Amino acid sequence: MQYPAPIAKLIDSFMKLPGVGEKTATRYAFYVLQMEDQDVSAFSKNLLEVKRKLHHCPNCGNLTDMDLCSICRDKSRDPSTIIVVEDVRDVMSMEKMQEYHGLYHVLNGVLSPSAGTAIEDINLMSLLERLQKHPEIKEVIIATNANVEGETTAMYIARLLKPIGVKVTRIACGLSVGSDIEYADEMTLFKAIEGRTEL
Amino acid sequence: MQYPAPIAKLIDSFMKLPGVGEKTATRYAFYVLQMEDQDVSAFSKNLLEVKRKLHHCPNCGNLTDMDLCSICRDKSRDPSTIIVVEDVRDVMSMEKMQEYHGLYHVLNGVLSPSAGTAIEDINLMSLLERLQKHPEIKEVIIATNANVEGETTAMYIARLLKPIGVKVTRIACGLSVGSDIEYADEMTLFKAIEGRTEL
Repeated sequence: MQYPAPIAKLIDSFMKLPGVGEKTATRYAFYVLQMEDQDVSAFSKNLLEVKRKLHHCPNCGNLTDMDLCSICRDKSRDPSTIIVVEDVRDVMSMEKMQEYHGLYHVLNGVLSPSAGTAIEDINLMSLLERLQKHPEIKEVIIATNANVEGETTAMYIARLLKPIGVKVTRIACGLSVGSDIEYADEMTLFKAIEGRTEL
Repeated sequence: MQYPAPIAKLIDSFMKLPGVGEKTATRYAFYVLQMEDQDVSAFSKNLLEVKRKLHHCPNCGNLTDMDLCSICRDKSRDPSTIIVVEDVRDVMSMEKMQEYHGLYHVLNGVLSPSAGTAIEDINLMSLLERLQKHPEIKEVIIATNANVEGETTAMYIARLLKPIGVKVTRIACGLSVGSDIEYADEMTLFKAIEGRTEL
């Protein structure tokens, strides 16, 4: 016996999501069966609209359903600093901090020779154009991930931007707040000592 | 900053699924963004169709998009035995065994005084009608879950059906195949000894 076609197809669709196997997809599909009609209609519509309405902000690469993203539209933000991040979700993480009021530039990717990602595959050249067009930008803070690809990309961006005369900085590596030295790995400890500050 | 409305709404929809929190829902929603257009359209359509096209088989309570479910339609199946299960997914588990060729009756629920589920809330009275209409049914095998609600329901069904004169059996409790006695709980061991068979 196989499940009736409509539920089998929905299980297939759920299985396309990351980390969702047959068991979880079946659980989700049966749950949908007992959901309110209006919730399922909304779910169905939201799936289509996310593909139809969203695009990357032409200025910074963030996601938006308007001409410019909500951060680029916000005139109260400090235009002298740009944080460069790999992903749209990283913008959200930075914003949760509630301490940064400058702008962003979203690469939507990272340089990775092993994965075959080159400079033209990420939203990097537009950062150069942005800097040339807006001399009010004084500092570019590179906040790519603290792994091999993130570090490579940070180094590359730094070399690319230095000739323009803008200040290029990299966020610090070190202990997570609240963590124990005992459990820190040796690379993190090394970075924490290297980046020590005077008290 | 908040995510643009289309993605925030999709995250909300994913969060309605069982066991999906904000982090997982966000991961799913961003994954949808990079899925093929046709896969997302199919996903959206499948959600609607599962609600529109599926209903319970009027004979046995299994799910179907036809008049009768695929098992009730199959003339090659043995009409003399019925396995009673709690859920549509249990039919699938039984069928995976590939050893049973009789029919099913799906309760779509279980008697549970604590959850307030009474006899009229589950698909039980139609089993009585089925037995009265089809004297070829010789045995009803009760395969509700091996927990308090499942056992209560099994006892109730047995008392209900006995007066009709049909043979009512309950599936065995005991050790899982491949498991060690060392790790079996005492109730399972007790049931395994109680249900011992002569070699």
